[in-house]
Amino acid sequence: MPLDTTQTALSDDYTRVRARSEALCSPLEVEDYGVQSMPDASPAKWHLAHTTWFYEQLVLTPFLSGYEVFHPGYAKLFNSYYESLGTLYTRSERGVLSRPTVREVYDYRAHVDAAMTTLLAQAGHPARAEIESRTVLGLNHEQQHQELLLTDIKHAFYKNPLRPAYLQNPPPKARAATTKGWLAFDEGVYEIGHEGSGFAYDNETPRHKVYLNAYRIADHLVTNGDYLAFMVDGGYENPDLWLSDAWAVVKAEGWHAPLYWEEGEQGWQAMTLSGMQPVDMDAPVCHVSFYEAAAYARWAGKRLPTEAEWEQAAARTATAGNLYAADVLMPLPSGPHHQFYGDVWEWTASAYTEYPGYHREAGPFGEYNGKFMSSQMVLRGGSCLTPADHIRATYRNFFYPQIRWQYSGIRLAEDGQ
Amino acid sequence: MPLDTTQTALSDDYTRVRARSEALCSPLEVEDYGVQSMPDASPAKWHLAHTTWFYEQLVLTPFLSGYEVFHPGYAKLFNSYYESLGTLYTRSERGVLSRPTVREVYDYRAHVDAAMTTLLAQAGHPARAEIESRTVLGLNHEQQHQELLLTDIKHAFYKNPLRPAYLQNPPPKARAATTKGWLAFDEGVYEIGHEGSGFAYDNETPRHKVYLNAYRIADHLVTNGDYLAFMVDGGYENPDLWLSDAWAVVKAEGWHAPLYWEEGEQGWQAMTLSGMQPVDMDAPVCHVSFYEAAAYARWAGKRLPTEAEWEQAAARTATAGNLYAADVLMPLPSGPHHQFYGDVWEWTASAYTEYPGYHREAGPFGEYNGKFMSSQMVLRGGSCLTPADHIRATYRNFFYPQIRWQYSGIRLAEDGQ
Amino acid sequence: MPLDTTQTALSDDYTRVRARSEALCSPLEVEDYGVQSMPDASPAKWHLAHTTWFYEQLVLTPFLSGYEVFHPGYAKLFNSYYESLGTLYTRSERGVLSRPTVREVYDYRAHVDAAMTTLLAQAGHPARAEIESRTVLGLNHEQQHQELLLTDIKHAFYKNPLRPAYLQNPPPKARAATTKGWLAFDEGVYEIGHEGSGFAYDNETPRHKVYLNAYRIADHLVTNGDYLAFMVDGGYENPDLWLSDAWAVVKAEGWHAPLYWEEGEQGWQAMTLSGMQPVDMDAPVCHVSFYEAAAYARWAGKRLPTEAEWEQAAARTATAGNLYAADVLMPLPSGPHHQFYGDVWEWTASAYTEYPGYHREAGPFGEYNGKFMSSQMVLRGGSCLTPADHIRATYRNFFYPQIRWQYSGIRLAEDGQ
Amino acid sequence: MPLDTTQTALSDDYTRVRARSEALCSPLEVEDYGVQSMPDASPAKWHLAHTTWFYEQLVLTPFLSGYEVFHPGYAKLFNSYYESLGTLYTRSERGVLSRPTVREVYDYRAHVDAAMTTLLAQAGHPARAEIESRTVLGLNHEQQHQELLLTDIKHAFYKNPLRPAYLQNPPPKARAATTKGWLAFDEGVYEIGHEGSGFAYDNETPRHKVYLNAYRIADHLVTNGDYLAFMVDGGYENPDLWLSDAWAVVKAEGWHAPLYWEEGEQGWQAMTLSGMQPVDMDAPVCHVSFYEAAAYARWAGKRLPTEAEWEQAAARTATAGNLYAADVLMPLPSGPHHQFYGDVWEWTASAYTEYPGYHREAGPFGEYNGKFMSSQMVLRGGSCLTPADHIRATYRNFFYPQIRWQYSGIRLAEDGQ
Repeated sequence: MPLDTTQTALSDDYTRVRARSEALCSPLEVEDYGVQSMPDASPAKWHLAHTTWFYEQLVLTPFLSGYEVFHPGYAKLFNSYYESLGTLYTRSERGVLSRPTVREVYDYRAHVDAAMTTLLAQAGHPARAEIESRTVLGLNHEQQHQELLLTDIKHAFYKNPLRPAYLQNPPPKARAATTKGWLAFDEGVYEIGHEGSGFAYDNETPRHKVYLNAYRIADHLVTNGDYLAFMVDGGYENPDLWLSDAWAVVKAEGWHAPLYWEEGEQGWQAMTLSGMQPVDMDAPVCHVSFYEAAAYARWAGKRLPTEAEWEQAAARTATAGNLYAADVLMPLPSGPHHQFYGDVWEWTASAYTEYPGYHREAGPFGEYNGKFMSSQMVLRGGSCLTPADHIRATYRNFFYPQIRWQYSGIRLAEDGQ
Repeated sequence: MPLDTTQTALSDDYTRVRARSEALCSPLEVEDYGVQSMPDASPAKWHLAHTTWFYEQLVLTPFLSGYEVFHPGYAKLFNSYYESLGTLYTRSERGVLSRPTVREVYDYRAHVDAAMTTLLAQAGHPARAEIESRTVLGLNHEQQHQELLLTDIKHAFYKNPLRPAYLQNPPPKARAATTKGWLAFDEGVYEIGHEGSGFAYDNETPRHKVYLNAYRIADHLVTNGDYLAFMVDGGYENPDLWLSDAWAVVKAEGWHAPLYWEEGEQGWQAMTLSGMQPVDMDAPVCHVSFYEAAAYARWAGKRLPTEAEWEQAAARTATAGNLYAADVLMPLPSGPHHQFYGDVWEWTASAYTEYPGYHREAGPFGEYNGKFMSSQMVLRGGSCLTPADHIRATYRNFFYPQIRWQYSGIRLAEDGQ
Repeated sequence: MPLDTTQTALSDDYTRVRARSEALCSPLEVEDYGVQSMPDASPAKWHLAHTTWFYEQLVLTPFLSGYEVFHPGYAKLFNSYYESLGTLYTRSERGVLSRPTVREVYDYRAHVDAAMTTLLAQAGHPARAEIESRTVLGLNHEQQHQELLLTDIKHAFYKNPLRPAYLQNPPPKARAATTKGWLAFDEGVYEIGHEGSGFAYDNETPRHKVYLNAYRIADHLVTNGDYLAFMVDGGYENPDLWLSDAWAVVKAEGWHAPLYWEEGEQGWQAMTLSGMQPVDMDAPVCHVSFYEAAAYARWAGKRLPTEAEWEQAAARTATAGNLYAADVLMPLPSGPHHQFYGDVWEWTASAYTEYPGYHREAGPFGEYNGKFMSSQMVLRGGSCLTPADHIRATYRNFFYPQIRWQYSGIRLAEDGQ
Repeated sequence: MPLDTTQTALSDDYTRVRARSEALCSPLEVEDYGVQSMPDASPAKWHLAHTTWFYEQLVLTPFLSGYEVFHPGYAKLFNSYYESLGTLYTRSERGVLSRPTVREVYDYRAHVDAAMTTLLAQAGHPARAEIESRTVLGLNHEQQHQELLLTDIKHAFYKNPLRPAYLQNPPPKARAATTKGWLAFDEGVYEIGHEGSGFAYDNETPRHKVYLNAYRIADHLVTNGDYLAFMVDGGYENPDLWLSDAWAVVKAEGWHAPLYWEEGEQGWQAMTLSGMQPVDMDAPVCHVSFYEAAAYARWAGKRLPTEAEWEQAAARTATAGNLYAADVLMPLPSGPHHQFYGDVWEWTASAYTEYPGYHREAGPFGEYNGKFMSSQMVLRGGSCLTPADHIRATYRNFFYPQIRWQYSGIRLAEDGQ
């Protein structure tokens, strides 16, 4: 059920999405909100403020008559990367901002929420369509940051030798793993990409034809057990398996296991949102980079699917799976759903570039996705942190190939039938 | 006329290619052979030795009975990036190697050439086919290094405030520019990639179908004059035109013109292999990165072609143009050939990834191209430094998007008919 | 009045010093405690915990029977640089530690304080002398960190574009500046360094003879007005004034004024603990590096005093001045005291090396001062953040020559009478 | 025998010193002249040109009527660090300068030598005293670069896996080691520093009084055997022995032996100017940093001497020892001379700062020594590469404490009699 745009539904969606951001923070101490554990991550407080800034800058200031900004300094402080909206505060120094306090950020949210409620009630506003469109984008934007907020707090807790847990309840009991096989498709012209009235990001458009050779794609994800076999077989020591850039990183960073794994006396453990836990060998491998995904696939004698191959296979199944559920938040062994949605974002063999006919707007909306179309790889399918109403077959996520702190994993493919 | 593999022809090709490497060095002083002006570049001496090492390691040692290596230390010293062939000498420190001397490197070449002559004369060698195949690869490899040798010596001379000239003759008189227009193609399924008996790199295979929307592609290259208009219009100051990674580089490096351009009292000058010369406004812009190419295209309201669009257009014309000619070595205004071949390598919108059905071998031959398939962009068409028998429509060159010291330029495309 | 070691006095000193650390934090929000704005600085929370760790590790654990550490993870987490006490947590990542929370750190302090009270009441403890000695060292250590805590919070607030103020009261009304002159001394053998029963750090010992040429030393500090004249005269653009290392930093960092200065429409302002304030031209210049102090002195035709020159002049005056006062916390124009004590730490011309006869102990106490005796410069006299009972004529502070975030300033000297 | 300034003697000195620079290069191949193996080192060609530039810029241009510079580009290219003489070519890129060629540099030398011969013959030149003074400085400057040239070529050959040898003759037969003891001195006022008519650098002046406690200084240098005992005893693994800055470098760089040492099947070998050779356990340890010297001394229960202690002891012996001899060029076991002069530069405990009463001139001569007076340590006594007419008791050499490519070693001292 994607976010809706009928007037009532939009107000409800707004309330629901905004509330979830705050609910996500309920296990946090005040001190946890401010931590930035690496330049790629942001403090929880910053996520809460930046998502609010989006509505203030792009909806309220242009469209709500008489709106007064909450604080004049926030326009710069909580701008992430929109060059068209003025100078930026240094990304890597977000952890320095002890002010505004957490309380002030919540006040900021309340201030903006009240104004948004007012604005969304103006059914006859002359810019109604644009307001709705930007608000829906803002909600999708906030859902992305909800996932990032959890990803980032996990990293911060991992860097702390005390290894705090975000969730106090024990990790969920694993589902039993099901049979593993392949889905086969004929060669031919297929269509991928978004069209229609539901929400999608601009980078999913336009829908267009692609020619695919016959291929097979796994109906399940690579598990921790599968990946451990690669490790035991010397995967991290064999340069033949790795891309050139990848091998340089493996050596420079001393990679020898997925991020968050630690070998102890009781075997492999890994940091989770429930603290350090034994690695479940039936669950999908997670926190691997594209480089590791590609090396694993080469070792296995297979390859990664392209995003077109992935999408045309995934589009045939319902968008169900181990998506965001407040008491799980970790990948689980394969169930009845082929795992296309949820569990882990799946690295594809496709570099993130524009679709044929894609047009990148000028101004801030053109900066949302289009300016990142170089040197990144496409991931598909959402993870166990992704809200169920935020994912779809055409969704294109993208990260640099060396990135590991995202919930990213591996699905294999191969040529032919 | 690509390199041939009949026995006599191969010997002749070997002699011809090897001789050209040395002829290219005839304007150099002994001191020039050793300079490495940045980690991406290599000394001329190293190019001469590394191309020789290729035959020694991959042809002579395995196949010539009784062959003795010229020097046991060279196996490591002149290995570029073949992890499967042992440890590597640090790439960025090639300029430290005063020994072997230039004389010794020429002796090394002579030693290997004599042995290769012996081996190539063994028509009945049981591994004849493999010897021929590897030799042809070695010759193509050497041709690539011939272009790099010139590219690198240009950079070294540019870094020297005395600005030496490689060519003593004046730059060629410019051709008159011809009319500029567009070539239009219908949507449909096309085929690209190499097949057949002629030589091609593995990354050009297999030939495969692609679906292309209707598109138009320029029948000429963007000129220095065109590019200057972008500069004058504030192209380097407008973040809206740039990819995110690109803008970070523009600011960090202070880019404000193509590499090698300098503004003086007589207007823009640029370093060439004939020393500093006035910029010819009718000649193709050169030494721009992918980032600059993409920003220019956005400014012009167009886009870069994909490699498939480029190839199916270029394949319709003969592989003629301003390719390597010992007395030119610089891009020239457009002539009768649409400039698909020669002048400058043309950045495409395509990331360098594997073709459907591509298989990367294990061992050193799999390292030749396949391991570089991440984070780089495809360039097509060859440059004014590329030997005419080394280029073809299916040829895929690749460099990182920020690279500027190559002879790289811009061709535009757009959607529709 | 230095810290005393009689039993009652020591308990009182303990209570007093510990309370002041906490009082210093009263203006802080919970969020402020966790910020680390650069690797040289530490979070306030870390200062509070580390000073507590010192007693736990070096007094309670060895000497209080039955003492239980508050948390087993803290031994590593709050070790600053004592290699002899185990592995260290990465200094530059102290800002990542959202846990322990501020509340937990205060609990830690209370736990240790209770145990220390118990231990200090054991008048007949067989290790009484060592307990007293280490406790006094711990209190002096904590006083150093009190100054650092304020220095660091100032830097954190400066890095925040909102520029919060630590003190809400306005800056103090400036004292009138007094006459400025020189103090002259004859050549001869003098004695410097600590001896006697009062507390001093090991680096102040032993007292020893030095031979000084006749010299004159200013009876006042260089003011902001003086320093502005240097700036206006092109001081930051003239390489002849700077040491070689200094000039490299000036260019690389773009230095053109003291740290914290900003030029606006109303002239020069500077960050203070009372927020941004106009620069008082009669107050001592502050937040200059040794490099700037040396360049200024060369520009003025003078030089910096050696630490021996400074000490033998300063030892003749009472240790009074603009030292720590909760409502001031900024340098003030010269008063009746020659400013030897308080206002700003004064860079000397002396590198920080060991005194003749100095012996660096093995173990953690030898790490306190002795292992820093390379590449740093001596500063003397304390600052407006230094507690009055913490400073003395023989006190040797030391920082790297490029450091500017300390309250560091300039006193001039010259040869002859 | 220091360099003389009588007219004939000066001409002779000029001829002799200039000839030796060229003689030093006789074992070099043309290719060897251009290598810069690290930013601290310079190519041999650059040393030859820079020393020539000194006379051209500071003697010929100002004083020889009608003198024409050899090449207008050299003024910038061969300026080392004289900010007062214009902008500088980037130090770390000297290895890029293939031009001027070696031949051209020798021509440059001949051009300047001819002009200098003309100028030095002008006995009645109105600026005769200044010409002589600058020429003598230039010759001493060139002697310093002779030592650096050898030091740098050794490093370049070491970085080359082929490990070329500069000297083809075998290393000298070692002298037998003599008895080792201590020289003792009473406390009191001593004088150090240069005075009188012979040449000295400005940093050796003025002669001045220092107060020294009673001390003892070793009559020999620490040997490789001594140092190996420190290594075997875990010296490089014990942080208690090291200064804080030092320990950071030990860990970051993986130091575990002096520079150039390699452990093989036949035990320890070290790079020398005669190629790789077994380590002579009776010869002085060489290529250790100040950090290592200080750690060794602490391990041995001793300390390093201050420069004043060193000088007043060394001044009592003749400036004889294992100084530059074309066929030795390596430290030798102790002979009859206490090794104060030659063998290795001896790290002292003294930071390099100005003497009391020292005045640093404005302009290029003030840049010669004075601007380096921060963060460096004083070394004394010359090495086996130092010309015998270039060393004296008052000579102050200086390098950063982590530097190891110089011929630097260790002499111990201790307190008391």
